[in-house]
Amino acid sequence: MQRIAVDMDEVMADTLGELLARYRREQKTSITKDDMQGKWLWQVLPPKGQELIDSYLLSDGFFEEIPVIEGCQEVLLRMSRRYQIFIATAAMAFPSSFHSKYRWLRRHFDFLSPQNFVFCGDKSILHADYLIDDMPRNLASFQGEGILFTAPHNVNTTGYRRVSSWQDVDAMFLG
Amino acid sequence: MQRIAVDMDEVMADTLGELLARYRREQKTSITKDDMQGKWLWQVLPPKGQELIDSYLLSDGFFEEIPVIEGCQEVLLRMSRRYQIFIATAAMAFPSSFHSKYRWLRRHFDFLSPQNFVFCGDKSILHADYLIDDMPRNLASFQGEGILFTAPHNVNTTGYRRVSSWQDVDAMFLG
Repeated sequence: MQRIAVDMDEVMADTLGELLARYRREQKTSITKDDMQGKWLWQVLPPKGQELIDSYLLSDGFFEEIPVIEGCQEVLLRMSRRYQIFIATAAMAFPSSFHSKYRWLRRHFDFLSPQNFVFCGDKSILHADYLIDDMPRNLASFQGEGILFTAPHNVNTTGYRRVSSWQDVDAMFLG
Repeated sequence: MQRIAVDMDEVMADTLGELLARYRREQKTSITKDDMQGKWLWQVLPPKGQELIDSYLLSDGFFEEIPVIEGCQEVLLRMSRRYQIFIATAAMAFPSSFHSKYRWLRRHFDFLSPQNFVFCGDKSILHADYLIDDMPRNLASFQGEGILFTAPHNVNTTGYRRVSSWQDVDAMFLG
């Protein structure tokens, strides 16, 4: 059975959407993902803004409130019958997020075994056939085939097969 | 550069020693590791005892107090100059331990990058040349070469190269 590792932020969890929603509420601005095409968050926010974003990421329970990206639950459930699914999330930059991320996964993906959760940093440690991730640097060091999940910051990245929604993932792996 | 994944409990951290020390203090008994050769903890404790052990494992900050196994710091430091060292610990059974384990690693192994920490369940996900671990089932599913680190429960296990101390690890990888 082939094994697929799936990243969490921006692939399963709309972390950027939640960060921007908080930022808009607190700063009375109108910034959306549309303002970020081809850019990282730090390139479109003032320095003070980046500090605020970091404070959200560090705040207790932030990760538990993040919405699931549309279609992810249904497609992953069906994929889990045909593939070994591992969830591989970069958690080491925000150690206070470990437990929140674990609870989020248990709540929204109760059909996945926690034995298949991996909280890591450098994703070159993953032994899997595929990695679905929005971060080009994670795909670059991964040993299997990296599949790029579209996020504002990576719209200009080339060199990987790309999916822009869970419908695309469905078509690629179950179609 | 070859990559070595290193388990935490019973390899870097004397978790069993700390559990038994607490148990002796609370229960006024004299059980030691010598009473456990070839056995798991649940085989030598009464059912109530196993419940107590679980309560220690679940208690806040338990993992932060565990002593480092002798020689581990010095040998890993020297190994980190010749190999890529990743720390791979089974943390999913005790999600409340994540942050404690992270802090323990940072305090005692500040020369290792958190990018090389992996909190996981099933260790077959690790992409490494070697895994040093006390659990035969982790070595069985690992894709590289598994090196068995001696612990009371595994003294009768065969089929792997065995190390019984960090001096042995030193001799195997740096000798």
